[in-house]
Amino acid sequence: MAEVQIPRTYKAVVYDNPGTISTKIEELTTPEPGPGEVLINLTHSGVCHSDLGVMTNGWAALPAPTQKGQVGGHEGVGKIVKMGPGTENSAVKVGDRVGVKWISARCDNCPPCLEGHDGVCLNQKISGYYTPGTFQQYVLGPANYVTPIPDGVDSAAAAPMLCAGVTSYAALKKSGAQAGQWVIVMGAGGGLGHIAVQLAARGMALRVIGIDHGSKKQLVLESGAEHFIDHTEGKVDQEVKKITGAFGAHVALVLTAANAAYAQVMDLLRFGGRLVCVGIPEGEPQAIAKAFPQTMIAREQSIIAVAVGNRREAIETLDFAARGLVKSHHRVEKMDKLTEVFKEMHEAKLQGRVVLDLTD
Amino acid sequence: MAEVQIPRTYKAVVYDNPGTISTKIEELTTPEPGPGEVLINLTHSGVCHSDLGVMTNGWAALPAPTQKGQVGGHEGVGKIVKMGPGTENSAVKVGDRVGVKWISARCDNCPPCLEGHDGVCLNQKISGYYTPGTFQQYVLGPANYVTPIPDGVDSAAAAPMLCAGVTSYAALKKSGAQAGQWVIVMGAGGGLGHIAVQLAARGMALRVIGIDHGSKKQLVLESGAEHFIDHTEGKVDQEVKKITGAFGAHVALVLTAANAAYAQVMDLLRFGGRLVCVGIPEGEPQAIAKAFPQTMIAREQSIIAVAVGNRREAIETLDFAARGLVKSHHRVEKMDKLTEVFKEMHEAKLQGRVVLDLTD
Amino acid sequence: MAEVQIPRTYKAVVYDNPGTISTKIEELTTPEPGPGEVLINLTHSGVCHSDLGVMTNGWAALPAPTQKGQVGGHEGVGKIVKMGPGTENSAVKVGDRVGVKWISARCDNCPPCLEGHDGVCLNQKISGYYTPGTFQQYVLGPANYVTPIPDGVDSAAAAPMLCAGVTSYAALKKSGAQAGQWVIVMGAGGGLGHIAVQLAARGMALRVIGIDHGSKKQLVLESGAEHFIDHTEGKVDQEVKKITGAFGAHVALVLTAANAAYAQVMDLLRFGGRLVCVGIPEGEPQAIAKAFPQTMIAREQSIIAVAVGNRREAIETLDFAARGLVKSHHRVEKMDKLTEVFKEMHEAKLQGRVVLDLTD
Amino acid sequence: MAEVQIPRTYKAVVYDNPGTISTKIEELTTPEPGPGEVLINLTHSGVCHSDLGVMTNGWAALPAPTQKGQVGGHEGVGKIVKMGPGTENSAVKVGDRVGVKWISARCDNCPPCLEGHDGVCLNQKISGYYTPGTFQQYVLGPANYVTPIPDGVDSAAAAPMLCAGVTSYAALKKSGAQAGQWVIVMGAGGGLGHIAVQLAARGMALRVIGIDHGSKKQLVLESGAEHFIDHTEGKVDQEVKKITGAFGAHVALVLTAANAAYAQVMDLLRFGGRLVCVGIPEGEPQAIAKAFPQTMIAREQSIIAVAVGNRREAIETLDFAARGLVKSHHRVEKMDKLTEVFKEMHEAKLQGRVVLDLTD
Repeated sequence: MAEVQIPRTYKAVVYDNPGTISTKIEELTTPEPGPGEVLINLTHSGVCHSDLGVMTNGWAALPAPTQKGQVGGHEGVGKIVKMGPGTENSAVKVGDRVGVKWISARCDNCPPCLEGHDGVCLNQKISGYYTPGTFQQYVLGPANYVTPIPDGVDSAAAAPMLCAGVTSYAALKKSGAQAGQWVIVMGAGGGLGHIAVQLAARGMALRVIGIDHGSKKQLVLESGAEHFIDHTEGKVDQEVKKITGAFGAHVALVLTAANAAYAQVMDLLRFGGRLVCVGIPEGEPQAIAKAFPQTMIAREQSIIAVAVGNRREAIETLDFAARGLVKSHHRVEKMDKLTEVFKEMHEAKLQGRVVLDLTD
Repeated sequence: MAEVQIPRTYKAVVYDNPGTISTKIEELTTPEPGPGEVLINLTHSGVCHSDLGVMTNGWAALPAPTQKGQVGGHEGVGKIVKMGPGTENSAVKVGDRVGVKWISARCDNCPPCLEGHDGVCLNQKISGYYTPGTFQQYVLGPANYVTPIPDGVDSAAAAPMLCAGVTSYAALKKSGAQAGQWVIVMGAGGGLGHIAVQLAARGMALRVIGIDHGSKKQLVLESGAEHFIDHTEGKVDQEVKKITGAFGAHVALVLTAANAAYAQVMDLLRFGGRLVCVGIPEGEPQAIAKAFPQTMIAREQSIIAVAVGNRREAIETLDFAARGLVKSHHRVEKMDKLTEVFKEMHEAKLQGRVVLDLTD
Repeated sequence: MAEVQIPRTYKAVVYDNPGTISTKIEELTTPEPGPGEVLINLTHSGVCHSDLGVMTNGWAALPAPTQKGQVGGHEGVGKIVKMGPGTENSAVKVGDRVGVKWISARCDNCPPCLEGHDGVCLNQKISGYYTPGTFQQYVLGPANYVTPIPDGVDSAAAAPMLCAGVTSYAALKKSGAQAGQWVIVMGAGGGLGHIAVQLAARGMALRVIGIDHGSKKQLVLESGAEHFIDHTEGKVDQEVKKITGAFGAHVALVLTAANAAYAQVMDLLRFGGRLVCVGIPEGEPQAIAKAFPQTMIAREQSIIAVAVGNRREAIETLDFAARGLVKSHHRVEKMDKLTEVFKEMHEAKLQGRVVLDLTD
Repeated sequence: MAEVQIPRTYKAVVYDNPGTISTKIEELTTPEPGPGEVLINLTHSGVCHSDLGVMTNGWAALPAPTQKGQVGGHEGVGKIVKMGPGTENSAVKVGDRVGVKWISARCDNCPPCLEGHDGVCLNQKISGYYTPGTFQQYVLGPANYVTPIPDGVDSAAAAPMLCAGVTSYAALKKSGAQAGQWVIVMGAGGGLGHIAVQLAARGMALRVIGIDHGSKKQLVLESGAEHFIDHTEGKVDQEVKKITGAFGAHVALVLTAANAAYAQVMDLLRFGGRLVCVGIPEGEPQAIAKAFPQTMIAREQSIIAVAVGNRREAIETLDFAARGLVKSHHRVEKMDKLTEVFKEMHEAKLQGRVVLDLTD
């Protein structure tokens, strides 16, 4: 294949004043891929609510404040331009489109990795926080951990699949929901939610009840939910039981950061039902309000917690996207608009997801 | 087979003053087995802590106060003396030894039954509460729900297997623990606990850490636990990690009614670990104290709740007993000692389980 | 509910000369439901290829020749008109529409029953062979084994779901196929096949490759298959690999009685792929031709065999039908046409399934 | 840690005349670890029957004749003496004891690798055949694919665990056998067999029936089998049913290369039973003789094929060894005895396994 021209420096958006909403474009030196690594020329990156949390130090789950000059972002798509040493047997090669995920690298060696818990890897790298992220034109990634992007998914559309898509899909798989069963998605109109609804309804033949603020009704129903419940109108449990019959839903996914969702969810589940925790609540940790041994035992219910998807789940998610079964609602913006985008996000004015165009 | 002589009346121990600890022997009329039923001449019944709760109306989970004259008990063993109509294809016949469980009958028709959740059956009969129990010489049971007792387990020893044994075994199976993994048993020296430890260690090749009051140490270690931790000495989580390595245990079973056990247990589990709730806490329902979505997600942990075992689990439990891998610690008492036994139990003076001899 | 009028006698179609294709309408005495039984006033019964085999003694799997006067049929639908003793807690009541399956009763007591293998029950009754079947206006069935028919499925359409539907669905579930994976259906245009394709594609979000004689192409594609392969044109394995990529399909269901299908199927499976055997081959038993340990080990493949679905799978199948996701292609005929129908079937002239109208 | 002295050359045993039983000690140049690799100073290597097949070109499964000068062996144990680039986050470090398996490297990138089928990896390296094996003092291996050897297992004892142990354990896990169920091991006295029996009986609480030539009886019973059947005495199926009751065993592992074992095994399984294929039969591929769809359907049985274990299964196997639950029967020989060892093996005179001492 033709030689790819790699510039000596490139443009990146950095957090120039972490703790505040502020970004700046800087010129950085293009890195060399180390053993097992590839160099990717990114063209697009999704902007996720977690990035806002990292930039503003607003997210209690992260162990240390974000550094000045940090490059954020964790939903990146681009082409491989160079392979590092020891990548001869890789499934990817120069010219392939690939994606970078929230966890951009895991060691594949520690006990959690050996048992398939990528999200618990003791040496994990979190894109856009511990390591330079995807709000830049070039990034390194492990040859065997970047996700091949299939033809038929354009790069802007692929970006949100790498975080919102993969995580939702992993949660749906781990829920054990079987085709034809009722799945509640709490936060169904959000960044994860509207993708989860599509994956569940169109990709996996589940029957979806979407719950969110009334303003999200149309998006949720268009995404494939059979029913929408506006949680601001109260009586959510009565509505669920009108739909599902007296027992409730087989599975409920909490995809929001609202403690209120966790407080309510146990009552929506039938006997044998499973709550899947994905959304990380804001503020001080609170126990899931109705995680009572008594009632869980009387109903033989379970609670499952899912952090991220793995490599295989990423490939499967992109395959659903390539088949046209799941699409992100997003608009594309240039790099220099990132600060504005984060402000909109902070003020909750954002409709759908934003994907940065990194090409100039 | 030779005709069995069935008396017109027989002796039963009844709760003559529910709400207090008081029992009385009465003469009752022998019932006729209805369609699908068998009549059992009971010889032994275990006395369980739940019976005390039923008698004294001390157990919030039950929907109505216990009736005067109620026959208690739910771990009964005896011989079938008569088969009702429609039992031609039954796996049991006159002369077979069989056992009666906590749930003495389930409808096998409602949605929970169809999905294997016997403990959630909408028409379930609870032995010794809704229906006459096993503190009597004759009892009815469904031909296809009583549990055959294999040769090699004497009837007194079989009795506690039908509640403590089956429930522990069901919890261990549903935990997903695989051979060689670490399982914590909280309440390891109790009625369920010492049997759970044996089933886990000897029956299922799991590695057991027993946790209980220091006075139970010897019983727990003799039951097959590799390690014992006295929870009154604090630092339980440090002890667990000394034993298992930094990560903690794969599975923890809470078999006590102590809220304190639930408050502590999440910290003893490794990544991907599973809490199994079996013990029904006393008092007002409290959420499992550290069931935080944040930490559960960060560690990809789960919570499972188990009410009772099913018919197959009962058979498998008795099979472990028949092979000598699990034995109950119990003493045998006559029917007229039941009030005294309950008083000892109430005062926490009871060592091991008591089995009533119902033969005269 | 209003009293239901039950006639003393009713009409049945019997095999008056087993070994040949011949049926005759007779007047039989209406039976009384025994303990645990219900009496059903049947309105419709599917006619299945297995019935032909039973009538003509052409099916090696059955242990004894069919008796003169046998009432055939095993896909019956009608209304309950009377409940036997001991059915108080049943999920069904007089007036409910219910269905009768191939296995019309299982003992629920023997070891296979206890482990969920209804098809291996030691005391099973096979409708239309061991016991009077569904080509008649009244039939008995166990209250807890007949299948409730949901509103939204008319009785003629429900009939084929009770055999072809349930069996296909059980096979798809046991295959372990997950949403988005490739499933080959061999015999995709047949009675089971066209229903299996719909269940897989529309009910379970699987990607279906249908294989059959070219004349079935349209039916198979209309049923939801993404691809059709005409097995008479050879090169089936090449076609499969063109569609799935080099590896082959995740799962293949053999739903025909053709040994040729079994001879070919192992080469269509990818690494880790699973063959599901459902169709019972004609003639002397032959080993699955390419069930070589060498190649199965080199590809880590499996073979699974499925006899019938269980009660829960029957309910789930009917639920897919009630949602309009699966429909049988059938025409309705009167009882006196049954001999003709079997002749058409024998001559392979039948298009789609026939359902008998039993109402007069 | 102290600098390790690495010699420029070292001793290896090579196949100097492949196609015959002949080995020769040669001096080879010590290689440098590449990216992701470690250099291991081997001290021990097991000698497996597969090595004989590779040396003599007697094994049809391998795609090309063995090359002159090939270093054989695939059960190697030694200490890491040097880490290649890109191994910073590895779970192993210089000084650690590690083991090399049959598959010494897999790409971790191809579809089979992504789905956990190491044995089907498109780029796999087979130790002692495609790549230099373990009959030498130094070998390279991937940092994240070599198996850490726990303290408490000496190196000679660890060697056979890396092939015979891991494969047996993987087969037992994939069989789905649950604690207390009957598992038949065919070839129970062989290199794999006697380890499989120990893992099953002592490690996993399964009940084992060992089948082999009568001369192996003592070894099989000492390994933990409850029963031994001499297959030369015929009536194996009757013996099995005497032991298990009328139904047969839940699982059967075929660990021999004898087609006769495969021909017989299906009749030893109960309803729902699973055959696990591990042994690769000699000669032309033959279908498993009684893999009849008819009987498999009537009994709802399955066939599973297992090639090798994965990294996690290797660690778990060594953990059973470290706990003293499984021990290989082996004798230790010097490198210059290898030709003699292979001759003994060829003449079937070998008792137990041989482990080469590679230290001088």
